[in-house]
Amino acid sequence: MAIKNRNRAVHLCFLWLLLSSVLLQTSDGKSWKKHRLRKPCRNLVLYFHDVIYNGSNAKNATSTLVGAPHGSNLTLLAGKDNHFGDLAVFDDPITLDNNFHSPPVGRAQGFYFYDMKNTFSSWLGFTFVLNSTDYKGTITFSGADPILTKYRDISVVGGTGDFIMARGIATISTDAYEGDVYFRLCVNITLYECY
Amino acid sequence: MAIKNRNRAVHLCFLWLLLSSVLLQTSDGKSWKKHRLRKPCRNLVLYFHDVIYNGSNAKNATSTLVGAPHGSNLTLLAGKDNHFGDLAVFDDPITLDNNFHSPPVGRAQGFYFYDMKNTFSSWLGFTFVLNSTDYKGTITFSGADPILTKYRDISVVGGTGDFIMARGIATISTDAYEGDVYFRLCVNITLYECY
Amino acid sequence: MAIKNRNRAVHLCFLWLLLSSVLLQTSDGKSWKKHRLRKPCRNLVLYFHDVIYNGSNAKNATSTLVGAPHGSNLTLLAGKDNHFGDLAVFDDPITLDNNFHSPPVGRAQGFYFYDMKNTFSSWLGFTFVLNSTDYKGTITFSGADPILTKYRDISVVGGTGDFIMARGIATISTDAYEGDVYFRLCVNITLYECY
Repeated sequence: MAIKNRNRAVHLCFLWLLLSSVLLQTSDGKSWKKHRLRKPCRNLVLYFHDVIYNGSNAKNATSTLVGAPHGSNLTLLAGKDNHFGDLAVFDDPITLDNNFHSPPVGRAQGFYFYDMKNTFSSWLGFTFVLNSTDYKGTITFSGADPILTKYRDISVVGGTGDFIMARGIATISTDAYEGDVYFRLCVNITLYECY
Repeated sequence: MAIKNRNRAVHLCFLWLLLSSVLLQTSDGKSWKKHRLRKPCRNLVLYFHDVIYNGSNAKNATSTLVGAPHGSNLTLLAGKDNHFGDLAVFDDPITLDNNFHSPPVGRAQGFYFYDMKNTFSSWLGFTFVLNSTDYKGTITFSGADPILTKYRDISVVGGTGDFIMARGIATISTDAYEGDVYFRLCVNITLYECY
Repeated sequence: MAIKNRNRAVHLCFLWLLLSSVLLQTSDGKSWKKHRLRKPCRNLVLYFHDVIYNGSNAKNATSTLVGAPHGSNLTLLAGKDNHFGDLAVFDDPITLDNNFHSPPVGRAQGFYFYDMKNTFSSWLGFTFVLNSTDYKGTITFSGADPILTKYRDISVVGGTGDFIMARGIATISTDAYEGDVYFRLCVNITLYECY
């Protein structure tokens, strides 16, 4: 698998950090009563790599379709309606950088499905199962992922181990993809509750 | 699509607000140590509209079956066992009132499945992706939805954008339905954590 | 269904309580700023019982496959790849002890799928719908479940009713299983936010 865009990806993640700092400071002043958003207590940037089963890569695939609309099959993403309804289960390696061959620090396990007919968009439910010298524990994510948008936020809904009771936001960007077989996501995790 | 029950629906949502205020004030006095539930910081009432693919409405359908038990098919809800096991993916318009033709303020994206054999009941995981002048952001919901109960609560598990770090409760009521093809849900969202 | 391991299971759950107390007290001292984990405000130990449809037990089954990878079927768990991709929906009785025939105090409703090719592992999204004299309300869970590990933590991501706004951890252990047809999980729920 070719390694592309490394410097650009790192650069973009830094850009995001800057942007998010600015945005957080200006998101105040609504009419309903609210708390001021506390400062982030933790930030992690991790990558995960999804190799989708396409009928001929059973050995290397890290995800597979398990559901699809009527008339589709489970070996290829649906050709029409932007894969609407295609449901995949995955167990993807997590790395500290964007190199597929870097030593994994954990696994991203969960599911996604394509959820729009008129554009590419998905919905994600998954857990980072981290097991390295730096991190032991899990972080669970959930939310809509409009994949054609450069940066999209999903919710951190819980955690265990080092991440017990974690809450926050993960900003996802598609770092690279190759057709319908491989994609790599950069996940910039900002936690606002840490213990 | 016929628009029914408009005034009744609005009326019922107000009734719910009254009831919930009373219930929240009397839910105290358990033996285990707990905090007093803080006051709600935000309330939204929104509607979403689900048009289920039935084999002949591909153009208009906003949801489709993608999984079902052995012996079922994906064009019609399972005839026996109260659709137990039928799994649908949806991308439904959200409106401010119960009119299917009102301008949508966002999309409800996610999945549900029927989860009981002896009655109609479902389980939901979905996100409100809101994009209007009033709201920009997402709210993610998760929980059991015993659809024959008039009002049922599910959990708000996270949010992004205007709803960053949102937590709370959504009270769902079925505002109208037409056979196995259309249903409209009223979602009364009460947040207890706002930023 | 034979009732096994009762005393051992209760014993192991107590052991877990001891261990977790110790672990919670020593999980301090990281480089990132964090709060001290507040004391648990509530603890529940419950069991749930899953009877998987296998093609011949339709009447008694409490769960069924609804999705599977290409080439698998929905009457039996996939024979290869450790059931990777098999997706099941369940509606399981919850009991206070490990006796399948004890009066249920609620239902565990949700889904799981097998999420690893090289070992048995799963991912869970489900809700405890409790309806007894002691508890009325729901608790929703989400996370990875490496089922061959003795004790594994998943996240409590929300709750309603008596468990409104619940957050915390559930430690799951497999209390008993019989082939691919029955398993019983002990769920030790520790909440850190109670209202």
